[in-house]
Amino acid sequence: MADFELLKDLIVPNPSKIVLLVLDGLGGIPREPNGPTELEYASTPNLDRLAMEGSLGLTVVVRPGITPGSGPAHLALFGYDAAQYQIGRGVLESLGIGFDLQPNDVAARGNFCTVDAQGSIVDRRAGRIPTQKCVELCNKLRLITLPGVEVFVEPVKDYRFCLILRGQELDPRIGDTDPQRKAPPLPAQPYAPEAERTAALINEWIARARGILKNEQPANALTLRGIAKDPGLPRFPDVYGLRSACVAVYPMYKGVARLVGMDVIDFEGDSPADEFATVKAFWDAYDFFFVHIKPTDSRGEDGDFEAKARVIESVDATLPALLELKPDVLIVTGDHSTPSVLKSHSWHPVPTLLWAPGATRRDSAKAFGETECLKGALGTFAATDLMPLALAHAKRLQKFGA
Amino acid sequence: MADFELLKDLIVPNPSKIVLLVLDGLGGIPREPNGPTELEYASTPNLDRLAMEGSLGLTVVVRPGITPGSGPAHLALFGYDAAQYQIGRGVLESLGIGFDLQPNDVAARGNFCTVDAQGSIVDRRAGRIPTQKCVELCNKLRLITLPGVEVFVEPVKDYRFCLILRGQELDPRIGDTDPQRKAPPLPAQPYAPEAERTAALINEWIARARGILKNEQPANALTLRGIAKDPGLPRFPDVYGLRSACVAVYPMYKGVARLVGMDVIDFEGDSPADEFATVKAFWDAYDFFFVHIKPTDSRGEDGDFEAKARVIESVDATLPALLELKPDVLIVTGDHSTPSVLKSHSWHPVPTLLWAPGATRRDSAKAFGETECLKGALGTFAATDLMPLALAHAKRLQKFGA
Repeated sequence: MADFELLKDLIVPNPSKIVLLVLDGLGGIPREPNGPTELEYASTPNLDRLAMEGSLGLTVVVRPGITPGSGPAHLALFGYDAAQYQIGRGVLESLGIGFDLQPNDVAARGNFCTVDAQGSIVDRRAGRIPTQKCVELCNKLRLITLPGVEVFVEPVKDYRFCLILRGQELDPRIGDTDPQRKAPPLPAQPYAPEAERTAALINEWIARARGILKNEQPANALTLRGIAKDPGLPRFPDVYGLRSACVAVYPMYKGVARLVGMDVIDFEGDSPADEFATVKAFWDAYDFFFVHIKPTDSRGEDGDFEAKARVIESVDATLPALLELKPDVLIVTGDHSTPSVLKSHSWHPVPTLLWAPGATRRDSAKAFGETECLKGALGTFAATDLMPLALAHAKRLQKFGA
Repeated sequence: MADFELLKDLIVPNPSKIVLLVLDGLGGIPREPNGPTELEYASTPNLDRLAMEGSLGLTVVVRPGITPGSGPAHLALFGYDAAQYQIGRGVLESLGIGFDLQPNDVAARGNFCTVDAQGSIVDRRAGRIPTQKCVELCNKLRLITLPGVEVFVEPVKDYRFCLILRGQELDPRIGDTDPQRKAPPLPAQPYAPEAERTAALINEWIARARGILKNEQPANALTLRGIAKDPGLPRFPDVYGLRSACVAVYPMYKGVARLVGMDVIDFEGDSPADEFATVKAFWDAYDFFFVHIKPTDSRGEDGDFEAKARVIESVDATLPALLELKPDVLIVTGDHSTPSVLKSHSWHPVPTLLWAPGATRRDSAKAFGETECLKGALGTFAATDLMPLALAHAKRLQKFGA
């Protein structure tokens, strides 16, 4: 991970601006032998120009061969060793929807689901009920009280919600209740003696929720997973000396940003243009902007090579709006690869572009793409080294030692 | 090293097959400035095709600049940090000949040698006596008994044998008796107080062996080295979730494989064709095959550039027999470099080819060779990362974190 101790004494303030533009799941693999990846196939004149002017490289997100989830992947981009700081989904989702999670809260990510007459799960997402329905159901579930703890039930999106317990001596070491197959939901199982009381509370809540939901259709049951507490990470703005903002559409990514202490900016719309306009509106208030673009990953997971390439093209076309702000350092990368051929996240290193006028070394790369990145001046490196490189290129790090 | 803790929770079983084909000492350097290495000089149409289709890279075996011996080099390929797990030669040789080494046994590698009238070593290998003679001498030495311990004397090959002591509280922290120059063999010197009794037992055994050998010619003396115990490594089949087999001709490599818990397959013959036929015969019984080819290293140590290239060509020509089995992941690499120019192992990173249809990223490499590997999608990486990459490409690792 980034060496926070080492950095601490080297950071110097200056008026520079750093933008970290993350195209989720950016990396790909060819759909035919020796063919281009999605990024190579897409027409990206702006990114290609930045690639010519800046330095390219490839990031290893967690470890070689390890396919990261979105949480660990973003932590790595922010400089935290994802293997050391493992964050439960409950925490990420709660923070993502702006819930004011306290250090002792235990949070779970919930799914409404559909069970058959025997109680077995037949649809893990309850036919993707609309968010409005999710809000209604959460309102009903809010009537459940538990002895000695406060209970929060917060809608997220579609079939997803969060359950948060607030009280003394709660322990999150509890398994998921989603059996991940056609079977009834599991009970909340403690895997440490200290978590027995918390598990009992959760099981009581589940039993009463089941009573409330049993006549609903299709959301007649629920599962809980990623039961966790805020791990109390070192704060990104302190570690790097940057007033830091997150511009993202999806709750999960806002959650990771909030977890490390970034301000999360609310804004209207969900397009790259809306996101870049938000950066512009807050340009003076922050030193660092984390801008997150989701659909690259979604189209990769759909297995739609062409659609993923089109998302990349749309970001490229909008990029002048960001460049017009004249950032001192612009990094364009992904949190991980999501090759549409594999329809899932993958372990492949992530194409990375670092553009910092007057501060980068040239390389022979002529465009932004995985194969060109192999020629890049940054080489193949750990994603956790990206932030120190960003600070360096922003001239925000003084010399180490005399 | 490979992060065994991290991997543990990510491994998922599937029917995929992984083959790790190790051409011992594969890496080379040019014999004339800017000329080809042995691998680049050899005609290798099959390997070149795999290089086009797969991903290339270069592995750093132990640390940059460190020339590894065969034991550490193979441990690194298997994912173990060779600097952390140092294995004595006595253990490797004993395991290599199939000796059933117990956790408390102390094993030494022995050499028959020739001493002159003054007792000084004049031939460290006793004129490379034939194995049959070695067996005879070992049978004589088996008559020596020691108080409180069982003693095993096992012939290996030519002038090499193993001495194993079995008993309570034996300690292997004892120096080699080979003075590595024209001088009498050294006594077995303990370098920890707890090893004094074991050293005394070994010295008693040496004194009696000297009496038995004194009238033999040329093997009238012996030396012991690599005195060691089995370090009890994490088991490879457990760490990676792979039913794992070793197909090798030389005892040493079987020894390393046995040390990490692989099954060692016995077979007739010693050619690559014999080895590949063995893989075929056991194809259904295992998920992972470590196939070891020795002569690349031997010809490199001989300093015979042409002969080393011919060994590589012979493996290439036989490769279709392996490809016909349709492995999901085929890795072709070396355990270290043995440039024939240097006539010895070297520190140079090792050319590595990872072929996994539908799962690799392309690179601009057009053939399998050290210079092309510099363009490879895998970059230059630690040999200990090879197994996690193999598992990833075999789709045997699930996503880390949400």
